[in-house]
Amino acid sequence: MCEKATQLQKAQVGKVTPEMAQASQYEGVEPEFIRDKISKGRVVLPYNLLHKDEGRAIKPVAIGEGLITKVNANIGTSRDLCDPELEIKKLDTAIASGADTVMDLSTGGDIRAIRRMIRKKCPVPMGTVPIYDLIAKCADEGVDFSEVSPNEMYETIEMHGEDGIDFITVHCGVTLKSSEDVGRRIMGVVSRGGAYLIKWMKKRGMENPLYSGFDTILDIALKYDMTLSLGDGLRPGGIADATDVSQLAELTVLGELAKRAKEAGVQVMIEGPGHIPLHQIGANVSLEKKICDGAPFYVLGPIVTDIAPGYDHITSAIGGAIAAWNGADFICYVTPAEHLTLPNVDDVKVGVISARIAAHAADIAKGVSGAGDWDLRMSIARRNLDWRRQAEEAIDPFIVEKVRDRCPLSDTDACSMCSSLCAVKLSREFRERKKESAS
Amino acid sequence: MCEKATQLQKAQVGKVTPEMAQASQYEGVEPEFIRDKISKGRVVLPYNLLHKDEGRAIKPVAIGEGLITKVNANIGTSRDLCDPELEIKKLDTAIASGADTVMDLSTGGDIRAIRRMIRKKCPVPMGTVPIYDLIAKCADEGVDFSEVSPNEMYETIEMHGEDGIDFITVHCGVTLKSSEDVGRRIMGVVSRGGAYLIKWMKKRGMENPLYSGFDTILDIALKYDMTLSLGDGLRPGGIADATDVSQLAELTVLGELAKRAKEAGVQVMIEGPGHIPLHQIGANVSLEKKICDGAPFYVLGPIVTDIAPGYDHITSAIGGAIAAWNGADFICYVTPAEHLTLPNVDDVKVGVISARIAAHAADIAKGVSGAGDWDLRMSIARRNLDWRRQAEEAIDPFIVEKVRDRCPLSDTDACSMCSSLCAVKLSREFRERKKESAS
Repeated sequence: MCEKATQLQKAQVGKVTPEMAQASQYEGVEPEFIRDKISKGRVVLPYNLLHKDEGRAIKPVAIGEGLITKVNANIGTSRDLCDPELEIKKLDTAIASGADTVMDLSTGGDIRAIRRMIRKKCPVPMGTVPIYDLIAKCADEGVDFSEVSPNEMYETIEMHGEDGIDFITVHCGVTLKSSEDVGRRIMGVVSRGGAYLIKWMKKRGMENPLYSGFDTILDIALKYDMTLSLGDGLRPGGIADATDVSQLAELTVLGELAKRAKEAGVQVMIEGPGHIPLHQIGANVSLEKKICDGAPFYVLGPIVTDIAPGYDHITSAIGGAIAAWNGADFICYVTPAEHLTLPNVDDVKVGVISARIAAHAADIAKGVSGAGDWDLRMSIARRNLDWRRQAEEAIDPFIVEKVRDRCPLSDTDACSMCSSLCAVKLSREFRERKKESAS
Repeated sequence: MCEKATQLQKAQVGKVTPEMAQASQYEGVEPEFIRDKISKGRVVLPYNLLHKDEGRAIKPVAIGEGLITKVNANIGTSRDLCDPELEIKKLDTAIASGADTVMDLSTGGDIRAIRRMIRKKCPVPMGTVPIYDLIAKCADEGVDFSEVSPNEMYETIEMHGEDGIDFITVHCGVTLKSSEDVGRRIMGVVSRGGAYLIKWMKKRGMENPLYSGFDTILDIALKYDMTLSLGDGLRPGGIADATDVSQLAELTVLGELAKRAKEAGVQVMIEGPGHIPLHQIGANVSLEKKICDGAPFYVLGPIVTDIAPGYDHITSAIGGAIAAWNGADFICYVTPAEHLTLPNVDDVKVGVISARIAAHAADIAKGVSGAGDWDLRMSIARRNLDWRRQAEEAIDPFIVEKVRDRCPLSDTDACSMCSSLCAVKLSREFRERKKESAS
């Protein structure tokens, strides 16, 4: 087996790579567990082969069945707000807040330079959406997107491999057939990649090159061990469109493509909605797992109601928790800025923490190794009224003192909500008295 | 039937009260639907009989099976932060943010004066926890809570009836027997009422007067048609303690008491946890509905993980959505200040909106009349890139422009996230072209 084989190919011949071993330590499972799941396509470990050649040390992150639910943070410039330094701050904030991976979705400025700069500073697996380069380039040059040739698409994908990207969103399931019913929807197509590819197909009357040329994409992915994240270009943009024929038609195509990718030795995961009412989330996860033979499911949200712009970190925390509990493996954060503006640094922090809360709540429910222990440590710190320890155990260690110290405390054991009338304090007295009477 | 009968008694003899009629309009159901549910104890309509005598116009709010999930906001002073004017601001904020009911949990200052002031300004049903008056009084006077006589407890409850309170939390299920295993818990007892009543029982070696004197409480409740909210004094304070023997022992007692209340013509609902991992929430709701014969379930949160102080509006939005989807009827908000400090005005707003998001997401899933229509209106506003309408439809109308206007826009149809590359804009072009080619 050549060194340049993918994690999947190595797993299939029984080899535990150093990345699998490192990821297994983080998960608290045996390396063999990870290898086995990767070999079956149920776990991916997005790790561009160039990292070793180029001396990059990034954290290996395994995503999929039986593992800790992972969280991705999207950053990147837009055409209205292009400040690469701000994006680096957002990157640092995402990492400090505990994001497992980061996607650079830049569409403004010198996109390749920004991507390379982020890659240089990003300590975790990094994803991108290569088609955005071309959409932005067309806008810069005033050219219609339908002028882009299939080869330009493949070359752009290759460029992301060269840039050390670990996973890419490719909207390969948006086909002439799967997209034929989107006109019946309330919201139409809300995926940028999906919408531009439909435009391309409509103008040219030709099949989506990311579908027709899927073998070419597989060759590129293989060369760099870039994990394919099969994008949901037809994801619903409102709960009225959820779980509709367009979405299911695309998922069916993704199931076929996932099979082809695995057979070719290419790691693959599947992207999912979007906007889904909470009673349909379980069905969406089950369908993905069935149709895509257990490939890791990467959900955007899902957002469970459309009526809360400004609070979509909350609508998506509800959906993300239910999705992960039902088996989704990877949650893309949604920030309070969603539907309204490009997120700023504060949005990134709140977005990552909200998605991590959802992921962790689901991991407790799924019985993921060690998940409940964290809560137990916090409960013990609370029981002991040990505020320093509560801050240390908190998902956001900085907030505990900041909020608690807002009000002067007459009883430093308690907080200003109950002050001296604290039930936890009284429970401590019960315990102490019990001990005394026992001794 | 005397005018002074309770809503339950009137419903049982087939009478639709003006309050039932008004509530049914808000719900979009027939008045008879509400009457029938109230008669069976599956819906409560907390509405103190004194409102009419005293010329108070408050909004009748029905809570229970088949109805819109309601949201309560807790306000009130503490011993460290006692500013009645601030509490009025919190009241106004809770109402403006859409709280269906408000509870005054004051434990600092002249509690009765504060309660009456809030009652005067509160346009919705108002709840309290009468035992807090006595806990605070004991602390003021340096007297041990075990000195309080059962009669003082009943007199205090009567005082709340006189003050026009619509529903009261009474921890009647905390008995010598139900509380005997709390020592096995990680967190012990985290309910203030529960903890102080256990202290009382331990010191006196006597049964909880709210249990032993339940008939006295029923007489008072009957007199004012105060709805009893049977408190969960043994609710878990950490997920490790969730759904344990203590919690179930208390629930069993509450089931018996709910039956006695209904037989006496007293409206009753049941309070529920607290901290519950998300996979146990469904079971908790089912148990309550079974054991308490369908009495409305009023949940505090539930919080699905302990590790996120500062973000418990999110941990509880996840839990609240799942609880309400499973049949919980009434969600008590949790603010970002929970576990840390007394909430301020901003916390109240975020708390109410988060709980309303949870309630609404569940109502869509439960198919509550008209719930999905709101989302549809928002989706249509989004599809049309009609930003004014999006703000109008948003659960927080003020946030849309505030966030969107953070960044100058090159394309005023879109927002700064995608700018001119907006997929929704492209979808609009598809629709327009389709129309042109059809005409």
